[in-house]
Amino acid sequence: MFNLFSLKGGLNNVQGFYCDGVNVGMKNSEDGDVAFIRSIVPCDISSRFTSNKFQAAPIKHYQKYPKDFKTNFILMNAKNANAMTGTKGIEDIESIFKELQKYQELQNPIMSSTGVIGYRLNQEKITSAFSKFDYSAQESDKTARSIMTTDSFKKELAFKIELDDGTSFNIAAICKGAGMINPAMATMLCFITTDADIPKSDMEELLSIATEGSFNRISVDGDTSTNDTIMLMANKLSTAYNKEAFKEALNKITFELAMMILKDGEGATKMVAFEVNGAKTQEEARKATVALSNSLLVKTALFGEDPNWGRIASTIGASGIECDDTKLSIYYDSLLIYSNEQRELNKEREEKAYKIMKNSSFKVTCNLGLGDFSYTSYGCDLSYDYVKINAEYRT
Amino acid sequence: MFNLFSLKGGLNNVQGFYCDGVNVGMKNSEDGDVAFIRSIVPCDISSRFTSNKFQAAPIKHYQKYPKDFKTNFILMNAKNANAMTGTKGIEDIESIFKELQKYQELQNPIMSSTGVIGYRLNQEKITSAFSKFDYSAQESDKTARSIMTTDSFKKELAFKIELDDGTSFNIAAICKGAGMINPAMATMLCFITTDADIPKSDMEELLSIATEGSFNRISVDGDTSTNDTIMLMANKLSTAYNKEAFKEALNKITFELAMMILKDGEGATKMVAFEVNGAKTQEEARKATVALSNSLLVKTALFGEDPNWGRIASTIGASGIECDDTKLSIYYDSLLIYSNEQRELNKEREEKAYKIMKNSSFKVTCNLGLGDFSYTSYGCDLSYDYVKINAEYRT
Repeated sequence: MFNLFSLKGGLNNVQGFYCDGVNVGMKNSEDGDVAFIRSIVPCDISSRFTSNKFQAAPIKHYQKYPKDFKTNFILMNAKNANAMTGTKGIEDIESIFKELQKYQELQNPIMSSTGVIGYRLNQEKITSAFSKFDYSAQESDKTARSIMTTDSFKKELAFKIELDDGTSFNIAAICKGAGMINPAMATMLCFITTDADIPKSDMEELLSIATEGSFNRISVDGDTSTNDTIMLMANKLSTAYNKEAFKEALNKITFELAMMILKDGEGATKMVAFEVNGAKTQEEARKATVALSNSLLVKTALFGEDPNWGRIASTIGASGIECDDTKLSIYYDSLLIYSNEQRELNKEREEKAYKIMKNSSFKVTCNLGLGDFSYTSYGCDLSYDYVKINAEYRT
Repeated sequence: MFNLFSLKGGLNNVQGFYCDGVNVGMKNSEDGDVAFIRSIVPCDISSRFTSNKFQAAPIKHYQKYPKDFKTNFILMNAKNANAMTGTKGIEDIESIFKELQKYQELQNPIMSSTGVIGYRLNQEKITSAFSKFDYSAQESDKTARSIMTTDSFKKELAFKIELDDGTSFNIAAICKGAGMINPAMATMLCFITTDADIPKSDMEELLSIATEGSFNRISVDGDTSTNDTIMLMANKLSTAYNKEAFKEALNKITFELAMMILKDGEGATKMVAFEVNGAKTQEEARKATVALSNSLLVKTALFGEDPNWGRIASTIGASGIECDDTKLSIYYDSLLIYSNEQRELNKEREEKAYKIMKNSSFKVTCNLGLGDFSYTSYGCDLSYDYVKINAEYRT
């Protein structure tokens, strides 16, 4: 049907998109703190935002545009979320774009911010970036680094999709996120660009599917931020498109980015997939996996590499779903660690489990034995460093 | 109406109740690991158990007794929860009581266990306590110490209530709990004794009220165990009783014990009361306070003594309740730290807030500005020691 190739770099792989990031003195590092992505032609855009009721000013600003608007510019900044800043926060964005208009022709420009909540943007610093930007650059690396906050590594990906008729399109993305990642999106920003000739309705449909299968399934600490944003921009400079191929590419790029976020989970030392199957409904399976990936007792047991399945069972029992300990079974990877017939942990199984838990990633599977539905979420352990990072975040 | 006096010690203050605790080699300390409470006459008993679906064997064993049964004996053990042990777990209890019957005349004896999930009780060790117990002792201290697990101090209280007619009754309690404390009870056991002449129906009604106002409002880590138990035993050896007086005494004893649990929260360095008022419904206020007391980002900011109200606001926004940032206000004790008119944190307020957060306990109040309902929950911070205690719990 089609071939999917991984490309080096990120946003630089998609024709017609330009990007750059510069440091204007908000970050104490060499990384940028203000960046942009622009398209030489106005793009269709599809976005998913945080479920937090206190949506940040950039999200409210975005939502003032008419349905199905096109845009040619996204401005991004780190260190300040422009959240809980009221009407002033939106006015600040408008005044920033007024300044930017002196440098670039803007069509429905979008802003996206990440950082501390409760402070107004430093307009002077942000607008000082405008004379520093190279508007014809394709500096994906610098752009990806500019949106990093507590991230320990930059996150970018790109794929080429070759269709059977010989045509092709590319898809690329940058993303940030480390803490505050809950299965309902989280402190993350993700910008996806493509030149595929994708209809707007497919963008909406496929972005929903991709988000549900990726960013909505990861948990670092169960908190959901005011700024979470996923944007898919299509400038349609390629004539190529195939819905199935695009769906697979978009699912792949969002899933791999989600796993990068999890791997970078604040202080995390291991990633764990939690699969709950044999549930009566998919919602019950989902509820149980979310409880597992958010439980402090499970997360600290993972950090301690303690094959204490009791905490897994107890968390499922407390998750509010239907369950029965005589029908339940629990696996670490393929090792059966609990079933009705085999409840007590013997030395042999304990040692096998301990070996599995030593790995930097593994899977916990809970079969409820009650039905045919399953769900998988992804989590990480909770370490001393998580506490350190988050006790000291603002200082 | 009545006078309430605090008494020294715990269970030893209630006539007709005896208790003792001994070490049979399950705990590596001088504290006991098996204990009992017995009454010389059969007691009415009212209990509240965990909402975890995987209730431990002792709870299932209790529930096999007919409604309104009377009991004269509670046997307790630490180090092993007898949870997820299936039908064997209940048979083990029955066989332990068969042995105990050689020492004591038992009427509907009850067992209560706390410790690790997933292992059968060591019957030999537990029954070895029976020849060591002093069945006529009133060793409240030893009994309270015997049920401790990760607790760093024992928890016991007693009150005398003098009524206007000159009669009086006493109420006393011991309790254990440190981690895994969620607002829906938690890894806690609480045994309350009284000689008041209280009708069974009042026991049920008043225990529900007391539990809702105390143990159901505290959170250490948001997990709910398989064994949580609160029991109120009345032997009615005093002829005194007054419903209002008993209600106040029971509320007071459970609230103070709940605060002791919170103070002993694993690794906790400070206690925080979260009051949400101005909510449209009490359930919305409750939901918001529970979210606040469970949020890792709020808990680590408390540990870091960071007056970052943005995390408070973000947690309320993510809690799923109705809220509006133009109507919200946030206080640390009496210091207004956020309102629509005063969003950004200035140096002066930041320093005042920082001083408040240095205290070992303080209050965070969020006024939603939407209605007349309020709720208060109690939480603690999350420190390195929480991670340490829970990563190493079994080892």
